[in-house]
Amino acid sequence: MSVSTVLIRGTGLLGASIGLGLRAAGSEVWLSDPSPTAARIAEDIGAGTIWDPAAHQAQPGLVVVAAPPEAVPGEVSAMLAQFADAVVVDVASIKNAVLERLKEHDAGADLSRYVGTHPMAGRERSGPVAARGELFTSMPWVICPHESSAEDAVTAAMDLARTLGASVHRMDPVTHDNAVALISHLPQIAASLVASRLQDAPAGALALSGNGLRDVTRIAASDPNLWVQILSGNAPAVVEILYGLREDVERLIRTLEAPAAPGAQADIAQLIAEGNAGVARVPGKHGSPPQSFAVVTVIVDDKPGQIAAVLNDVARAGVNVEDLRMEHSAGHQVGMVELSVLPGRAQHLAEALTDIGWKVVLS
Amino acid sequence: MSVSTVLIRGTGLLGASIGLGLRAAGSEVWLSDPSPTAARIAEDIGAGTIWDPAAHQAQPGLVVVAAPPEAVPGEVSAMLAQFADAVVVDVASIKNAVLERLKEHDAGADLSRYVGTHPMAGRERSGPVAARGELFTSMPWVICPHESSAEDAVTAAMDLARTLGASVHRMDPVTHDNAVALISHLPQIAASLVASRLQDAPAGALALSGNGLRDVTRIAASDPNLWVQILSGNAPAVVEILYGLREDVERLIRTLEAPAAPGAQADIAQLIAEGNAGVARVPGKHGSPPQSFAVVTVIVDDKPGQIAAVLNDVARAGVNVEDLRMEHSAGHQVGMVELSVLPGRAQHLAEALTDIGWKVVLS
Repeated sequence: MSVSTVLIRGTGLLGASIGLGLRAAGSEVWLSDPSPTAARIAEDIGAGTIWDPAAHQAQPGLVVVAAPPEAVPGEVSAMLAQFADAVVVDVASIKNAVLERLKEHDAGADLSRYVGTHPMAGRERSGPVAARGELFTSMPWVICPHESSAEDAVTAAMDLARTLGASVHRMDPVTHDNAVALISHLPQIAASLVASRLQDAPAGALALSGNGLRDVTRIAASDPNLWVQILSGNAPAVVEILYGLREDVERLIRTLEAPAAPGAQADIAQLIAEGNAGVARVPGKHGSPPQSFAVVTVIVDDKPGQIAAVLNDVARAGVNVEDLRMEHSAGHQVGMVELSVLPGRAQHLAEALTDIGWKVVLS
Repeated sequence: MSVSTVLIRGTGLLGASIGLGLRAAGSEVWLSDPSPTAARIAEDIGAGTIWDPAAHQAQPGLVVVAAPPEAVPGEVSAMLAQFADAVVVDVASIKNAVLERLKEHDAGADLSRYVGTHPMAGRERSGPVAARGELFTSMPWVICPHESSAEDAVTAAMDLARTLGASVHRMDPVTHDNAVALISHLPQIAASLVASRLQDAPAGALALSGNGLRDVTRIAASDPNLWVQILSGNAPAVVEILYGLREDVERLIRTLEAPAAPGAQADIAQLIAEGNAGVARVPGKHGSPPQSFAVVTVIVDDKPGQIAAVLNDVARAGVNVEDLRMEHSAGHQVGMVELSVLPGRAQHLAEALTDIGWKVVLS
């Protein structure tokens, strides 16, 4: 990496993970956090050494501000002032609001040394104990230069992302915010809205839950405090999408209030068909175009070693598993392992597994 | 099973799967479908033999109507008339509308021999070629007797479900319809609404897609024709839930239109917190109460045998995997396998895998 001395300001999940990754790549990493406890934990897990202004002669070439979104403008401004030669990046998940508040907050700051970035990685858990250096491996990391970012600052930001194994996407802050409103903030809102309807559901209804409900509501377990900052920080882009959503909900309500009216059935079919068209555009694994895989299903007992044994035999058959899903359901101790494989390999795999004695269904 | 001769009317995915399962359990199964081709395919895959009124002396003890929801009332009525001693069940995913239309359609029918049922199992694929006898293994199957269902008819319906390995849930038709509106129809609508917003999204935005978006939109790939019948057939229950959803969307829009207003941040936090509370009520694997598992993450190369090798070593460590997720992302040929295990086993597993040489992260 072009920058070998890095100060991380904010040692939560993201900051500590960046520290771990950079240390593994050979950088010198210093840590700083308003909470001495958080900084000490990050140091203990090997994310770097605590920054002590009195003890260090060397100055960081790069400062990574990994604070909660609402604290970012103040921290970036302070870091630009404190380290007059350093490039300063932040990793907040909203970019334009941060930039605008930074400009308001500190009209005299040298913003040529600032580049906003957004690593698209996270976990359900937070704090330095959840950190891992591999958090960014193969994930998108958006680099959002603004109109006065210096090109060497942009290069340093890109180097940071690449050093941590991420794939770099460069776009302007407003384009970024519109993109995440759609592919991140809208799904979060939808998951929370559906999950909140379950609060007073009868237990008998919830006992019928299947993978559909589980998939749709999984991210509803996210941190309210973080999402307040994200959604209010990206309110204009999010609300624009919610206008469209509200219109679709209104139309569906009117249709279902009179499901026998002329055109009602076509209206419902259109909603589902539009969903078909939209989901077909979501890229698959490794950013490849969505692809149809064949699914080979294996019935296994719910005990140690069964899935391993299946996958062992899959490997012996020389077939690569593109995706793997376990089917969960109520009341039984039997599981179904769905192996997605290239269509041309499915028949061979099903036969190989059946020959060995597995209960296999190909479809 | 108490009923050993079964006629299946409608040999699509569900009908053919029921046939396969019953044949495996030793029942005599006859097949009938308005499409001779569908019936022949079902016969070819071993789901039963085509019903020929001229050739058979024996009469079915049980008739399973596995037609599309809107065709069910007419078919049930016809089967009750044609087979004067048979119990007739249907497997449509809505129950009260079917019952009401059945009563309207045929005031003279002997409904004591009719029991509505709903196996909560399905696939993204449809038709007899996608059928599998294990489709219902460990899945909920709701039995919905109405006020005049005879108890021996109810017993026959329950026997059918248990023979196919399902877990039986008994409830009245209206309770069932309210339950599926919430845990099945609402998630389908939410997934379709989110996915339909993606239709005109810039490709650059979609390239940032992560597991959150993929999870929320997965079921948006469902069949429009089927869902028209389900949603219009359960319109009153669904629309009631959509009123609540609309209110939440309205409130969120008002909040995000003025995110700096007093109370705005608390409003947003409340939506996310309510989602937290709702998702915590969704049962986990095997209908057990939701449980917190520890997650052990292993970094693997994306080539045949890697996941098998990991799971092999997990099995050797004597640890049971409660859930397994592969993390997908753009641009890299490295994968992360997230193993959910009982919290008390995580440390042991992480150490065992690390000792063998795996790149492991525990959190």
